[in-house]
Amino acid sequence: MKFTASPRAFLVLATSFVLLSSSFSVASLGTTMASKQSCSPAGACSSDANNPSVGELMKQSSESIVSMLGGIYEHSVWVAETFVQQQQGTFEDITTVSDLAAKLKEVVDSASQEQKLALLQAHPDLCEKVEKMKELTVESQQEQSKAGLQSMEGEELANFKAMNAAYKEKFGFPFILAVRNASKNTVLSALKGRLPNPKDQEFVTAMQQVHKIAWMRLLSKLNTDDAKGFLTCHVLDTANGIPAANMKIVLTRLSPEENAGVIGEFVTNEDGRLEGGPALKGGKEFTVGTYEWTFYAGDYFASKGTFTSGTPFLDVIPLRFGIDNPDDHYHVPLLVSPWSFSTYRGS
Amino acid sequence: MKFTASPRAFLVLATSFVLLSSSFSVASLGTTMASKQSCSPAGACSSDANNPSVGELMKQSSESIVSMLGGIYEHSVWVAETFVQQQQGTFEDITTVSDLAAKLKEVVDSASQEQKLALLQAHPDLCEKVEKMKELTVESQQEQSKAGLQSMEGEELANFKAMNAAYKEKFGFPFILAVRNASKNTVLSALKGRLPNPKDQEFVTAMQQVHKIAWMRLLSKLNTDDAKGFLTCHVLDTANGIPAANMKIVLTRLSPEENAGVIGEFVTNEDGRLEGGPALKGGKEFTVGTYEWTFYAGDYFASKGTFTSGTPFLDVIPLRFGIDNPDDHYHVPLLVSPWSFSTYRGS
Amino acid sequence: MKFTASPRAFLVLATSFVLLSSSFSVASLGTTMASKQSCSPAGACSSDANNPSVGELMKQSSESIVSMLGGIYEHSVWVAETFVQQQQGTFEDITTVSDLAAKLKEVVDSASQEQKLALLQAHPDLCEKVEKMKELTVESQQEQSKAGLQSMEGEELANFKAMNAAYKEKFGFPFILAVRNASKNTVLSALKGRLPNPKDQEFVTAMQQVHKIAWMRLLSKLNTDDAKGFLTCHVLDTANGIPAANMKIVLTRLSPEENAGVIGEFVTNEDGRLEGGPALKGGKEFTVGTYEWTFYAGDYFASKGTFTSGTPFLDVIPLRFGIDNPDDHYHVPLLVSPWSFSTYRGS
Amino acid sequence: MKFTASPRAFLVLATSFVLLSSSFSVASLGTTMASKQSCSPAGACSSDANNPSVGELMKQSSESIVSMLGGIYEHSVWVAETFVQQQQGTFEDITTVSDLAAKLKEVVDSASQEQKLALLQAHPDLCEKVEKMKELTVESQQEQSKAGLQSMEGEELANFKAMNAAYKEKFGFPFILAVRNASKNTVLSALKGRLPNPKDQEFVTAMQQVHKIAWMRLLSKLNTDDAKGFLTCHVLDTANGIPAANMKIVLTRLSPEENAGVIGEFVTNEDGRLEGGPALKGGKEFTVGTYEWTFYAGDYFASKGTFTSGTPFLDVIPLRFGIDNPDDHYHVPLLVSPWSFSTYRGS
Repeated sequence: MKFTASPRAFLVLATSFVLLSSSFSVASLGTTMASKQSCSPAGACSSDANNPSVGELMKQSSESIVSMLGGIYEHSVWVAETFVQQQQGTFEDITTVSDLAAKLKEVVDSASQEQKLALLQAHPDLCEKVEKMKELTVESQQEQSKAGLQSMEGEELANFKAMNAAYKEKFGFPFILAVRNASKNTVLSALKGRLPNPKDQEFVTAMQQVHKIAWMRLLSKLNTDDAKGFLTCHVLDTANGIPAANMKIVLTRLSPEENAGVIGEFVTNEDGRLEGGPALKGGKEFTVGTYEWTFYAGDYFASKGTFTSGTPFLDVIPLRFGIDNPDDHYHVPLLVSPWSFSTYRGS
Repeated sequence: MKFTASPRAFLVLATSFVLLSSSFSVASLGTTMASKQSCSPAGACSSDANNPSVGELMKQSSESIVSMLGGIYEHSVWVAETFVQQQQGTFEDITTVSDLAAKLKEVVDSASQEQKLALLQAHPDLCEKVEKMKELTVESQQEQSKAGLQSMEGEELANFKAMNAAYKEKFGFPFILAVRNASKNTVLSALKGRLPNPKDQEFVTAMQQVHKIAWMRLLSKLNTDDAKGFLTCHVLDTANGIPAANMKIVLTRLSPEENAGVIGEFVTNEDGRLEGGPALKGGKEFTVGTYEWTFYAGDYFASKGTFTSGTPFLDVIPLRFGIDNPDDHYHVPLLVSPWSFSTYRGS
Repeated sequence: MKFTASPRAFLVLATSFVLLSSSFSVASLGTTMASKQSCSPAGACSSDANNPSVGELMKQSSESIVSMLGGIYEHSVWVAETFVQQQQGTFEDITTVSDLAAKLKEVVDSASQEQKLALLQAHPDLCEKVEKMKELTVESQQEQSKAGLQSMEGEELANFKAMNAAYKEKFGFPFILAVRNASKNTVLSALKGRLPNPKDQEFVTAMQQVHKIAWMRLLSKLNTDDAKGFLTCHVLDTANGIPAANMKIVLTRLSPEENAGVIGEFVTNEDGRLEGGPALKGGKEFTVGTYEWTFYAGDYFASKGTFTSGTPFLDVIPLRFGIDNPDDHYHVPLLVSPWSFSTYRGS
Repeated sequence: MKFTASPRAFLVLATSFVLLSSSFSVASLGTTMASKQSCSPAGACSSDANNPSVGELMKQSSESIVSMLGGIYEHSVWVAETFVQQQQGTFEDITTVSDLAAKLKEVVDSASQEQKLALLQAHPDLCEKVEKMKELTVESQQEQSKAGLQSMEGEELANFKAMNAAYKEKFGFPFILAVRNASKNTVLSALKGRLPNPKDQEFVTAMQQVHKIAWMRLLSKLNTDDAKGFLTCHVLDTANGIPAANMKIVLTRLSPEENAGVIGEFVTNEDGRLEGGPALKGGKEFTVGTYEWTFYAGDYFASKGTFTSGTPFLDVIPLRFGIDNPDDHYHVPLLVSPWSFSTYRGS
C-alpha cells in the first residue's frame, strides 16, 4: 500500500477540509497555505521553507517531533508519542515522507482494537460539518460549491442524515472519507456503498481512510525540496509496432493552482522517450499535484503517413495524472494508434 | 478506408487552408464560414441552411451537381462530370456524404495514371504558399502562428525549400499534406519522411491525401442536418471486473469554436452505459468536430472503496476525440482502474 | 463482490483439497467426482444429476436444506441453520447459486466477532496437512506435485513451519488460502505477504478466503443445468479503427478435464461479433471452468492488407479465461493491432 | 517498415511454399531444411552451419554473392547484380540481414515501373499451383490440409478461379500473398479484399508482399548465429499500480518445431522484470520463430491478497508472439489486473 497527498492543494480545494480535517478552520488553513509556495517561472518551486524536511525533523528533540506530528492522526497524540518511544532516539533510517508515514502507520496498526476504535471515534461527524457550512456566508458557500454537501435540501438532506445516523449506529464511529473535493454525489455513493459492509470490513476501510488523511497531513507539514522522485514518459506506436519518435509533448501542472502552468515542451527521441532524461526531477520540480501530458499524436501519424481521418479520431491527446509521493518514480507512458490509446502507472 | 472532416472548423483553424485549399482565399473562406452555424443553447446546431443536403443535391440538375462538386478535386471538374455521366440520371443510391465521397473516389481511382498525375500536379506548391504568407500583415501571421511555416528562416527555410524542390523533382508533383493546423514540425517531418519513398508508393500516398482533402471540402459544401450518426459510451472498471455504475461523465464540444461548450452531464447506469441512450444523435447534435468526455473516475473509485492514493493517479480523466463522419456510430468507451486506462474507437 | 468456482475441477486438481477442504478425504472426493459429468460430443454436459438445482433444494424441507448446506462453512452448521430460520419458510427469492451464496454470506457477515473467529479457527492447519501428505504413497505425491507443498525440505520446510506458527500465534487462527492448485511458491508468498498485516485487516482477508471456499463448495453440491449465464465475444481492429470482420475464432474448454476439447469454430460478422449470438448459453453449455479463445488475427490482417512481418508479431492469439459464475454474462473481447492486443471482462 | 521471417519453419509449414516460393519443390525444400538445426537441450541452436553469415557472404566474390542472392527476388537476378554493382566492392556497411534486405529493396524501389511489373509478373499463378496440388498423393495433401486450397471444389473453386482470373486481368500480374500457412479462408478474403483496389494502390501492395517474401528467403539462406537481438519482459500490476514482483513466468518456443520446447522459467524481480537480464540473447538463442510466455498471474494476485474469483477470470496467461528479426530488441510486456490484460511490442 502507498500513501500520498498534495498539501499545496488545500487552499484551492478548500471544501475538502470538511472531510479531511477537523482541527483546522477554513480561514486559518487558507491563510497558512497561501504563502507556502515560492515558484520560479520555469516551474520549480520550493515547498514552505518554514517547514522542516524529514531529515531535519528527525534531528529535532523528541518533544518537537511529537509536537509536529501530534495532529497527524486526529486527536491522537499517542501515535506520535509511541513512535518516538519505539525509535529510542535513533531516527537515521527515516529519510523520506514514506518512511515516516510507514512508521506512524505501524504504530496504529499494532495498537489495540480499543485504541483504533477511539481513533475512529475521534473524527468529526460529517453531518455536523454540513450544518456549520450552511451557516457560512453565501460567498464561502460558493467557494465550496463543488462538494455541494451544503446544497442538500429536502428529501436528499433527510436521506443523507438518515444514512449518516445509521452508519454511526451500526459501526460505532463517524463516516470518514478521505477525498479532496469530493462531490455530493461521491459522498452519498460512498456512504450508501459502505453502509451494508460487515462491521469488521468497514472498520478496515475506515482505518484506510484515516491513514490516507494522515499521509496528506504529513505532506502538508514537511518540506520536500530534497525528495528524490522523478517523472518519465515513453510513447509507443501500436499501429506500426515501433517507438513513436519525434512526437511533440507538452507537460503542464494543473494543481496546486498557484503553481499551475506549462512546464515544458519535449520531443521524443528514436526510442520514443524524452530527450534529456526525466521531465521532472527532484523535490523542487517533482511536486505533489495534478499534471497533464499533451501528446501531439495526430501530427505524429500524419508525418509517418499512417492513415487518419479528416478530423482525426485521436489528434491532440491530453493525459491527466496525479503525483502523490515526492520520492517515487512515476513512469507515465502512452501506447497509441490512430484509433486507440492507453496509459498506466509504469516503473 | 473512411473519409471525414469538419468544415465548420475552417474559420477557427484558418491556417490549414494553406494545405487544404488553393481555390479559396483566406478572407472569403472566413467570411463564408462565419455565418454557417446556428446553434441552440442545448448544443444542437444546424449546418449552413444555404447548403443542400446530399439528398437535395442529388435531385438537382446535372449542371448544378457538377457546379457544386466541380471544385472538390483540385482544378479537376472532370471528376464531377464523369460521376454525373456514370450515374445516368439515377442518384437514389446516394444518401450520405460517405456514399457521395465513395462515388467520386471511384471515378478518380478508375482514371488513367495520366489523369491522376495531372490531378496531383494541379495542386499548389507549398513553397509558394509560404512565400505569400510571409507577405501577409503581422496580424494575419499571428493568426497563423500555429502552423508556423511562415516563421521559418535561415537554414531551416533553406532546408525546407531544398526538400520541397527535391520532392517535386523526384516525384513530378507538389508535396500535398491534408492536415488541418499542421505545425511546421509536422510538415517538415512528413516531407522528410516521404521524400525517400519509392515513386509508386508515394504516388499512392499523395492520392490518399487528395481524397482526404476532397472529403473535407465535400463536408463543407453540404448540409448534414439529416445525418444518422450517434455517439455512445461505456465505462468498465478493470480493477473490479464490473461495469462502472453511477460514474459522472461530462461531454464537451471543443470545436468548431463557435459551437464549443459543455453539451451535457451524464451518469452511468448499472451496465456502465449512459442512461437514456446515445449522448449525441443525428446531424444537428452529432456534428463533425472535436469532443471531450470528462470521466469522474476518482469519485467513482472512492465511492466503491477501491484504494486510491491521496492525490489519485487517475481522478478526473479527460478523453478527447474527433468525429469525422456525420453518419457513423462512434462508440468511445473507457476501461479504467485507479492506475491505468484505455480507450478505442469501438462499435 | 462475486463468488465462484468449478466443482467439476476437483478430481483433476485434487491437490487443491488441501487448501479447500478439511472434511473430505482425497479418495472419497475423487470417487464421488469421477461420475459427475455426462457430456455430449458437442460440448454440452450435465452437472451431477443427483445434485438438486438451487430451485429444487429451496423446495426441500428445512432439515434437508440444513443437511445439504451444513458443511459449506467449515464445521459451522449454524450458518445454514440461521439462514433457514431467517427465511421463515419462504425461499422464492433464491433462484441462483449467487442468491444462495449471498444469503449465507449475509448470515456470516452479521455474526458476532466471536462466531466469526470460531469459524476461522475451525479450519485445519496447513502444516498438519503437509505432514499427512508426506505420508502418502509416492504415486499420490506425484499427482500432487504441482502444489509441491509436500516437497518442501530442510530450510524451506523449517521456514514454512516457522511462518505458519507465527501466523497462528499472531492472529489466533490458521492460515487459509482459497486457491486451487496453489503452488508452493504461491502459498509461501501469500503467507509471507499476509503475516505483517494488521490484525483487523488480516481477519477480513481470511474471511474473504472462507467465503470463496464456501462458494466453491456450494457449486460442487448443486446442479446448475438451468443456469442463465452466457459467453459473448467482440473483436476490434485498433490499427484500422473498425470491427474485425470475418476473423476465425475457435473456442476450447480446458477444464474440467473430463469435458475438455474444442467447443466450436466461429467467424466474426461485420460488427466483429460472433454470428448466431452467444458462443455458450445456459447451464449445460456455459459450465464453470477454464476456456480459451483462439483468434486467427494474423490471417485477418493479411486479408485486410495491413502490414505484418514475415513471422507476424501476433498471429494465432490464444486468450485463456475462467468462468466462475454459471448465471453471469461473460463478455470477453479482443482489441487487436498487428503489434498489440488487450482483453478484459466486459459486459 | 521492417522485414522478417523464420526460414526454419519451412519444413513444418510446408504448404506455405505455394505462396512463398515457386523455384523450390516441396521435396527438395523439405530435405534441405530437415538438417538445418542443431540444438542444445537448453534451447540454443545454430542455424545451418553450411550457410554463411551476412558478414561472411559480404566477403565473398561478386559472383558468389550474386549466385547466393539471385533467387531472393523471383526470377530476377538483376536485383542481386545491381546491388553488387552499386556497392562497388565495398560491403563493410552491411552487417545484418536487415542491412542486406534494405539494400536489395532499395534496388527494387529505384527500378523502373517496367522492371517492377516484370518482377511481379515473374511470380507463379496461384491457380496453377492449386491444380498441381490436387495431383499430389493423398498423404501430401493431408500435410497441406491447413491451407486447404486444394480442398476447394464446386462453386467455391469456380469462384476462386474467377476472382484469380479477374485479378490478373485487371492488374496484369498474378495475385501474390506472403503468408505462411495461409488458410483457404485467408487467401479468399485477401483476394476478394484486394480485387477492388485502384491499380496504383494494388501495385504497391503486391510489391510489399514481394519484399516480404524476399526477407523470408534471405533469412533461410543465411546463418544468423552472430545476430544481436534479445528478448525482454516486464510485468505491471494495473490493479495496484505497482510492478508485479515475484511472478513466475515460463518461456516456450513453439516453432520451428524441431526446436520447440520449454526454454526457461523466470521469476520477476522487485521492478517486475526478469532477474538476470534478457530471456534470450544473441543469434543462437534468439532465433526467428514463434514463442509463448506463460504468466502465473493468478498465483501472483493470490499471494498479494488481491480479490479474485474461485475460478479466476485470469489465472495462467499464455501470451504468444513471433520473432521475425534476429537483430532486433523485442520487449514483450504484460499489463495485468485480475480482470484485464494487455501486451504490445515495446522497446
